[in-house]
Amino acid sequence: MKPTIYALNWAPDFAKGQVRDLRVRWALEEAGIDYQANCMSFSEKAQHDYLARQPFGQVPAYEDEEVQLFESGAIVLHIAEKSDALMPTDPAGKARARMWLIAALSSIEPFIFPYQDIILFNAGEDWAEARKPEAEKRLVDRLGQLAAWLDGKDYLEDCFTAGDLYMMACLRSLDTTDHISGHSILGPYVARGEARPAFKRALAAQMADFTGSPPG
Amino acid sequence: MKPTIYALNWAPDFAKGQVRDLRVRWALEEAGIDYQANCMSFSEKAQHDYLARQPFGQVPAYEDEEVQLFESGAIVLHIAEKSDALMPTDPAGKARARMWLIAALSSIEPFIFPYQDIILFNAGEDWAEARKPEAEKRLVDRLGQLAAWLDGKDYLEDCFTAGDLYMMACLRSLDTTDHISGHSILGPYVARGEARPAFKRALAAQMADFTGSPPG
Repeated sequence: MKPTIYALNWAPDFAKGQVRDLRVRWALEEAGIDYQANCMSFSEKAQHDYLARQPFGQVPAYEDEEVQLFESGAIVLHIAEKSDALMPTDPAGKARARMWLIAALSSIEPFIFPYQDIILFNAGEDWAEARKPEAEKRLVDRLGQLAAWLDGKDYLEDCFTAGDLYMMACLRSLDTTDHISGHSILGPYVARGEARPAFKRALAAQMADFTGSPPG
Repeated sequence: MKPTIYALNWAPDFAKGQVRDLRVRWALEEAGIDYQANCMSFSEKAQHDYLARQPFGQVPAYEDEEVQLFESGAIVLHIAEKSDALMPTDPAGKARARMWLIAALSSIEPFIFPYQDIILFNAGEDWAEARKPEAEKRLVDRLGQLAAWLDGKDYLEDCFTAGDLYMMACLRSLDTTDHISGHSILGPYVARGEARPAFKRALAAQMADFTGSPPG
C-alpha cells in the first residue's frame, strides 16, 4: 500500500500552494516515496470519520502500513526517519534536524501567525491597524535572528535536512509580503528550497489536486 | 558528564513554574536522568556566547555528551528517545507520541499565545479589548476539540508519553484563567500530570533555581 495523504480538493486563492499537505508531499518527494492523495471538500473534513483521524478537522493527515498520523511536522519527521535524504544518519545530526523543524513551528510561526491574522484576515479592522506595527516589529526582529544564524550558510546545518524543508515552507507563507523575497539572506535561502526538483513536483501535485468547488 | 540545561536565575512572578526549561526538567525526571542546571540572568542570555547556542536568546538550551540542542520540544523528544518512560518502544507508538508533542506546539499553543498576549501583556489596551472575544472563542473551540479526543481517556494514547508531558505543560500555561482548572475533562487531565512525582521534582527544582535579581 502506498502512503495516503489527506488533503483538500479546493482552497481559497491565497492558500493554494501553501496548504500544509505541501510540506508532507515535499518530504515524500525528497525521500523518493510514491504516495496517493485523498482530496476532500471542506464539508468532508468536518465529518466524524475524518475527526477520528484528525481531531482538529484540519489537513493534512497521513496513513501508511505502519501508522496513522496528523500534524504536518510529525508526518515530515516520520518520513525523515525512513530516508537519508532528509536527516543525517548519526543521532546528533538527527536531533539537530528535528530541532530546526520544531524551531520553525515553535519559534518562527508564532510570529508569522499574528501578523497574517492582521494583514490577511482582518485588514482594515481598527484593532488590527492598531496592533500591526508591533506585530510586524516582532516578526522582523525574529526573522533577523534567524538570518543572523544563516548568514554565510546555505542551510541551517551542514546539509539540507527536514529542518530546512520545514523552515523554508514556513517562511514561504510570507509570500504575499516582501519580508522574505526582499531579504538578502532569507530570500536566497527559501529560493534554494523552491529550486529543488522535489519541491517543484510537490507544488505541482498540490495545485493539480484543486479540482473541487468552493464550499456552498 | 551530566546533561546541562540552560535556564534562568530570575523570572517575573507569572512565569515562575512556567518557564519552558520546566518541560525539559520534567522529561529528565521521568527518564531518571540526573542533570545540572546553568542558570543565567536576562543579560547573560542575550550575550554572544549564548546566542551561538540558542539563536533566539531564549531558554532552555541543553547539552549532553552527544549533542547541543535548543527548543524545549526538541530536547524533550531527544530525552524521550533514550527512555521507555516517555515513549512506547514500537515505531508507530513513537511516531504517535512525537505527533502529540508537535500538536501541542502547532495546534494548541497558537491559540493560547494570542489570548495570553491580550490578557497578560496588553490587558486594558483598546485593541486588546476589541480582539479579546474572538481570541477567547478560538481558544475555547480548540480546547473543546482536544477535550473531545480525551473524553473517556486518561492520556492522549494508551499510556503516558512525552506527548502528554508536553501537552499538559502547554495547558498549564493557562493557570491564570479557569479555562483548564474549570474544565471537566482538561482539568483532571492536567491534574494527572501535576500529580506525578517527576513533575513535582521538576517544578521544585525550577523554583529553587530562581535565586537571582530582576534585570537592572
